[in-house]
Amino acid sequence: MIEGCNLIGGAALAGTGIEIHATEAASGKTLGPAWKGASDDDISRACNLAAAAFIPYRQTSVEERAVFLETIAENILAIGDELVTRCMAETGLPRGRIEGERGRTMMQLRLFAEVLRDGSYLDIRHDPALPDRKPAPCPDLRLMNQPLGPVAVFAASNFPLAFSVAGGDTASALAAGCPVLVKAHSAHPGTSELVGRAIVAAAEHCGMPAGVFALLYGPGNAIGQALVAHPTIKAVGFTGSRGGGMALMRTAAARPCPIPVYAEMSSINPVYLFPGALAERAEEIAKGFVGSLTLGAGQFCTNPGLVIAVEGVGLDRFLNAASESLNAASAQVMLTSGICQSYTEGVRKLSEHPAVAEVGRGTIGSDTQGQAALFQVDAETFLADASLHAEVFGAASLVIVCKDTGVFRQIAEALEGQLTCALHISESDHSLAADMMPTLEELAGRILCNGFGTGVEVAHAMVHGGPFPATSDGRSTSVGSLAIARFLRPVCYQDFPIGLLPKALR
Amino acid sequence: MIEGCNLIGGAALAGTGIEIHATEAASGKTLGPAWKGASDDDISRACNLAAAAFIPYRQTSVEERAVFLETIAENILAIGDELVTRCMAETGLPRGRIEGERGRTMMQLRLFAEVLRDGSYLDIRHDPALPDRKPAPCPDLRLMNQPLGPVAVFAASNFPLAFSVAGGDTASALAAGCPVLVKAHSAHPGTSELVGRAIVAAAEHCGMPAGVFALLYGPGNAIGQALVAHPTIKAVGFTGSRGGGMALMRTAAARPCPIPVYAEMSSINPVYLFPGALAERAEEIAKGFVGSLTLGAGQFCTNPGLVIAVEGVGLDRFLNAASESLNAASAQVMLTSGICQSYTEGVRKLSEHPAVAEVGRGTIGSDTQGQAALFQVDAETFLADASLHAEVFGAASLVIVCKDTGVFRQIAEALEGQLTCALHISESDHSLAADMMPTLEELAGRILCNGFGTGVEVAHAMVHGGPFPATSDGRSTSVGSLAIARFLRPVCYQDFPIGLLPKALR
Repeated sequence: MIEGCNLIGGAALAGTGIEIHATEAASGKTLGPAWKGASDDDISRACNLAAAAFIPYRQTSVEERAVFLETIAENILAIGDELVTRCMAETGLPRGRIEGERGRTMMQLRLFAEVLRDGSYLDIRHDPALPDRKPAPCPDLRLMNQPLGPVAVFAASNFPLAFSVAGGDTASALAAGCPVLVKAHSAHPGTSELVGRAIVAAAEHCGMPAGVFALLYGPGNAIGQALVAHPTIKAVGFTGSRGGGMALMRTAAARPCPIPVYAEMSSINPVYLFPGALAERAEEIAKGFVGSLTLGAGQFCTNPGLVIAVEGVGLDRFLNAASESLNAASAQVMLTSGICQSYTEGVRKLSEHPAVAEVGRGTIGSDTQGQAALFQVDAETFLADASLHAEVFGAASLVIVCKDTGVFRQIAEALEGQLTCALHISESDHSLAADMMPTLEELAGRILCNGFGTGVEVAHAMVHGGPFPATSDGRSTSVGSLAIARFLRPVCYQDFPIGLLPKALR
Repeated sequence: MIEGCNLIGGAALAGTGIEIHATEAASGKTLGPAWKGASDDDISRACNLAAAAFIPYRQTSVEERAVFLETIAENILAIGDELVTRCMAETGLPRGRIEGERGRTMMQLRLFAEVLRDGSYLDIRHDPALPDRKPAPCPDLRLMNQPLGPVAVFAASNFPLAFSVAGGDTASALAAGCPVLVKAHSAHPGTSELVGRAIVAAAEHCGMPAGVFALLYGPGNAIGQALVAHPTIKAVGFTGSRGGGMALMRTAAARPCPIPVYAEMSSINPVYLFPGALAERAEEIAKGFVGSLTLGAGQFCTNPGLVIAVEGVGLDRFLNAASESLNAASAQVMLTSGICQSYTEGVRKLSEHPAVAEVGRGTIGSDTQGQAALFQVDAETFLADASLHAEVFGAASLVIVCKDTGVFRQIAEALEGQLTCALHISESDHSLAADMMPTLEELAGRILCNGFGTGVEVAHAMVHGGPFPATSDGRSTSVGSLAIARFLRPVCYQDFPIGLLPKALR
């Protein structure tokens, strides 16, 4: 049921703020209904309800929270094809991708149910008392993690299910025991309402307090700033642009009581093509690269936006094969007209740069479609021109041509923090790769061999994070079971009677 | 050997900045030599040396780093009585306290050696590949923690050994694999140089890169701001005032690449006296309370600055006993004349507050000594007047008299974040205490029963941290083995050949 409503305190409410509309990504046509944005009063009420829900919600058992997460997953599936078709219309993404993402979203929710039942996320520690220690006895000390409090989540445009209303941030925060307030992304408001209602129904079904979840709509950044500034909010999850993330970071730092912001912002995901690998399989790598580059119209946080290689026959073979492969790549509908315009503008700037040469372009499409693009530039120009280090969100990439392995290594030292860094290597490259590892470990949250970063497994050992500006906090991940750690803090209990300890510590 | 030197790149160097002098705490007399502060060039050089040392230092084995930490501990002990007498002179703290603190400092260094050898701080995770998974194979994923990079440490005034040059921040950062730059506290510059030289000698003896440690002197905040703003610095550890910590937080957040700040700043450590406990043992609690209040002239981060109780016979007995005990408490030399003046001023303001009554005062001492003080105020006044919530650093405390247990509970909800909260309870108080636990768990990093927060065990389950403004980052602890987590970030290795993985992941 899509009615154009905010969801606050378990109820669907028409907002009173400025209206937003859904847009069919492929045609640019407006889709009904309209959503009136949450007013300042609505936001404040949702935040206060979340604060009131915090204590009862965190007091629920891990089993109750696990079942809540699993019920959300079931409810999302139960929406059926209405969710898939609406999401396809709003995002322009194909059915297979949306169905896959729905599965991933459910899997994430179920993973955190598993994490809860496993219990190791609590980091339980116990130092027993030493009553006879000299010169003073040692008390009994027990430690466990506790939730931070209500979390504001800013949904991403590019994963309308897996990084949106019931995405990884929401799942990990709810698992931790934190109520969640989601700012719906205006690029898929109908999808958001459907999923939000699935969460509200699960909360009701599982007897969770009504303030445990809210979904708020609104244009622009005002609603986000109001949420992050609200005193009841204790942490922020965000996936989006560098500008948007940094604005939230500033607001969070300027609060009377500053709070952590987990913002995933910007990454060009360098791909290192080592000489041995190019000699061995330049064409195969090129094919894989173009596949990764054009996946989902290039709208992945881990899209390979930068390729680094040493000049020579191997690189020439790669460039020829990539060019050929790319020339056959169809234009694809992008998520929003704004994203498409920014992409086209970014590509235009690259193409007009005097030192940048075109390697290949995909086919031209309609006004709502992005045309894939591959460029090349010499390393010296790249190192001297910071504008070439910026992310172009979409299926565009830049090959840095290095005159030797010294320059090849130097590029890694000149880059900003990244989500991923991919190495294409053969046996003969191991020594050079080993020398570069300490630099690459400082550069990125995930380093991968002979693959591309666009598949982000939901797993225990995943890190989807990385040094600034890839994220605002490189000590964390937003994908995988470790994501729950973002919303926890340790509490120590000293000399407590057993009956007063939290159940997990008894 | 105390020569009035900064320690940079393994060498003792006279600075070129403004001079500072040590002061004998008891007499206020200047002690030789003078220290010329580090210039901007010195700071920059130390930071760049730390950056250059980072890769070789983090590549050392855990055993090499463990031996390095143990060697620092041995070298500190080997300084012998020169360290103890200098530290006593500079701080006014008695021999027993300094010798105890030296033992604690060595124990902390050895604990982190143990943490390194144990290896669980690396949080190693492995999701093996699933080559046959449909629709796509699952890659091999391995995760381990890696160090953040060079850390700036700001030494505390109140623990001249355990929270200073070779204190918990330095020990945990060095253990993590991070080079450390310490800003010496101007209250104990000679102690700092002695300990700094012990670290430099250990680094040399253990073959560590020269940039792994630096000790920088200087007056005021300029040197601290320069350190925190330097692009090579990746994290900050600080123990000190709320104003000082927040200034560093602002600088860190305003950097082009923001960095985490672990600042321990301000806490009044509420002590809840429950009705049953007062009825049972008011006098005993009063005696323990005055002991904790006056320990080290009250100059503990965990000093009990606030007592909360319900009016009645039990509280009257507590107040009488506390008053009697306090009236016999000798004035004690405070760490610096500045701290003593701030303390005297804070006490004067309390005593002049129209709604605040004096419960007891310790004996009057000299100009460099603090006179202990206990006041009381009604809960309504306390709740309405934020000035009464501020820390008075020293042996002063305020008893909040509540008219019933409803108000008693309400106080906890009105307080800012705290390092500790102590509960004095008997069996009959368990039900009330259980009701209050969720609020107390949100309030403080450590909650303790029937004791006082002034003993902070160095242990695995210790949390010496807490919500803002107790610390800048309530997700962390600065005491105990978990302190190492502050200086680590997770890195994921996907589909790596075994030979290219870090040793710990093979």
